[in-house]
Amino acid sequence: MKNFSFYNPTKILFGKGRIQDIAGEIPKESKILLTYGGGSIKRNGIFDEVMEALPGYHIMEFGGIEPNPSYETLMQCVEVVRKNSIDFLLAVGGGSVIDGTKFIAAAALHEGEPWDIVKTYGKVIKRALPFGTVLTLPATGSEMNNGAVITHRASRTKLPFVHPLLYPRFSILDPTKTYTLPPEQIANGVVDTFVHVIEQYLTYPANGKVQDRFAEGLLLTLIEEGPKAITQPMDYDVRANLMWCATLGLNGLIGVGVPQDWATHMVGHEITALRELDHGKTLAVVLPAMLDIRRKDKKEKLLQYAGRVWGLETGNEDERIDAAILKTREFFESMGIPTRLCDYNIAADIIPAVIEQLKTHRMIQLGEKMDVTPELVESVLKKCL
Amino acid sequence: MKNFSFYNPTKILFGKGRIQDIAGEIPKESKILLTYGGGSIKRNGIFDEVMEALPGYHIMEFGGIEPNPSYETLMQCVEVVRKNSIDFLLAVGGGSVIDGTKFIAAAALHEGEPWDIVKTYGKVIKRALPFGTVLTLPATGSEMNNGAVITHRASRTKLPFVHPLLYPRFSILDPTKTYTLPPEQIANGVVDTFVHVIEQYLTYPANGKVQDRFAEGLLLTLIEEGPKAITQPMDYDVRANLMWCATLGLNGLIGVGVPQDWATHMVGHEITALRELDHGKTLAVVLPAMLDIRRKDKKEKLLQYAGRVWGLETGNEDERIDAAILKTREFFESMGIPTRLCDYNIAADIIPAVIEQLKTHRMIQLGEKMDVTPELVESVLKKCL
Repeated sequence: MKNFSFYNPTKILFGKGRIQDIAGEIPKESKILLTYGGGSIKRNGIFDEVMEALPGYHIMEFGGIEPNPSYETLMQCVEVVRKNSIDFLLAVGGGSVIDGTKFIAAAALHEGEPWDIVKTYGKVIKRALPFGTVLTLPATGSEMNNGAVITHRASRTKLPFVHPLLYPRFSILDPTKTYTLPPEQIANGVVDTFVHVIEQYLTYPANGKVQDRFAEGLLLTLIEEGPKAITQPMDYDVRANLMWCATLGLNGLIGVGVPQDWATHMVGHEITALRELDHGKTLAVVLPAMLDIRRKDKKEKLLQYAGRVWGLETGNEDERIDAAILKTREFFESMGIPTRLCDYNIAADIIPAVIEQLKTHRMIQLGEKMDVTPELVESVLKKCL
Repeated sequence: MKNFSFYNPTKILFGKGRIQDIAGEIPKESKILLTYGGGSIKRNGIFDEVMEALPGYHIMEFGGIEPNPSYETLMQCVEVVRKNSIDFLLAVGGGSVIDGTKFIAAAALHEGEPWDIVKTYGKVIKRALPFGTVLTLPATGSEMNNGAVITHRASRTKLPFVHPLLYPRFSILDPTKTYTLPPEQIANGVVDTFVHVIEQYLTYPANGKVQDRFAEGLLLTLIEEGPKAITQPMDYDVRANLMWCATLGLNGLIGVGVPQDWATHMVGHEITALRELDHGKTLAVVLPAMLDIRRKDKKEKLLQYAGRVWGLETGNEDERIDAAILKTREFFESMGIPTRLCDYNIAADIIPAVIEQLKTHRMIQLGEKMDVTPELVESVLKKCL
């Protein structure tokens, strides 16, 4: 096991009706800006519920944070924050709203060019506004971590940044608030969570036995509960288990002390930035091909994954690895998420564009051994067509 | 799944050589009191290493905190803290030193009778000194939780208390610092951790699928690594996995949203208070009998435990439950920890004494359904003889 530090001070308020506890988490004298996305929270009652839970507070609102939140939109919000001396942000939405709010929290107090926050992967951050979240779409884990991913539309750039000041003060996770989500978004979230776990697990053995068992536990739960979330959308326990999986899949815990990959994510980000394909779908396309191409480097963990997660114990090593990759692909497809670029009308001309963008973003040494080069990504993408 | 809140702000610094990072975690101007136990840290070099990592700090020391730390000893330390305006505590030791330091942290700032802190299970705590820990014996999980157990020698009372202010600011977990521990202490720690996990897992089904998988992952790791820690005492990864298991076994995570038992612990505490038997040993004695007596109420989880943890899939339900309890007993015995009271020269006369003490401490409705009465405990203890 490698040396590590772990620190995660986000307070989780989990369960039915927890929005009503929100006032206990925000100082009374705060000037709050409530941030949200396309406005579904106004139609489904979540907005009203939050407002009712904060009587007497000074609250402004900023809506319109889009999926893959853009620098351009977020900078408008930063203006609102500065002009109105906002001192607490409350993100109500999914990963995009929360990620966007993390950028706003840092950019509002940043002296200098705000894009530098993203360009330096968060290194220039010195201060950030405090913020909390009300999660409506389980997927990214942003509600209990200190990272975010922001897109610069003009340059088609989608990049992550992290900073210890970007942990939410609290996050409210009420599984009933996910009942009205479209099945496609639930499916995207399950795939996203699954691949988060895989990126921290399916590398090479590092004798992190607890981390492995925890990762396998999350994968097994996603496989068991994911399809039920589509067929039984009002099943509380199914939604609760998926929501908690999503949070624990990327709150830092399963990745401590072990190697991490993230090549699939970085390639997926480029596809989304170029073609606006949903994040979860890019992962469903890239992961099976990525595992296939890198099967030699990942052999031991692929075999462990085959056995412990999919119960594949027969056949030779290559057969078990093939079967595990096929099972993974079939799981994504069973959630209604196709796993080939052609399923999304994306042709081979995306390959040079992705390679070019990876080079521009200095993503030329990806993966747990930093040996995933643009050339290797090219061969992965050919298998994704 | 039940509603829950989860908040754990302790920063973990894990790995070889992490003591050298301690200065980054304690404010420079602090007046530190370093607390420790019987003095082994002076013989094995840990004391010196900590002092060298804190150059220029104002540090006093208080040694002699005993296993099952006593109110009597701790109050001497509280005097030292008050007299010298100590404002940061640094616990260097195992669970007893850390638990004792939590009491000191709260008692030093408590107005009124300090024993009330324990008598009210922590409810009267208003303030506490900040403290960090350097863990030398993985077992109790105290290094990453907000609870402690204190013994009042005079009245033979051993009681737990908790408070949100009692999370360590940081804990240093260096597995190499456990190399010189006597095998008996390692074994006690493995058993203690195992039973912590069982108390949060082996109750009744609550559809906390991730919590179950995580608990099973910890149990599987303990079963795999525990015996190796005895036969291969200098194996870094074995010690690292056990240390991380102990911390995660009782940092709150696996117990959220699911029922918890703790009857075995409460009965064990009384045995320790009456006869000074090591905590881990009381658990090894009580647990198998407790599971046997309560097999009907715990049937579904016992069967899940039998299958997922011990791979017992054949035989009828009672046979699988019998086998799982036997495997549990054999595991403790394989660690060198006997599982009968007679192995420790404790006879049947302890039974009325334990029952009497449980009543005195109002521990008359124990377990996940609050139906573990003194009468039921009596039948459990008869099976422990």
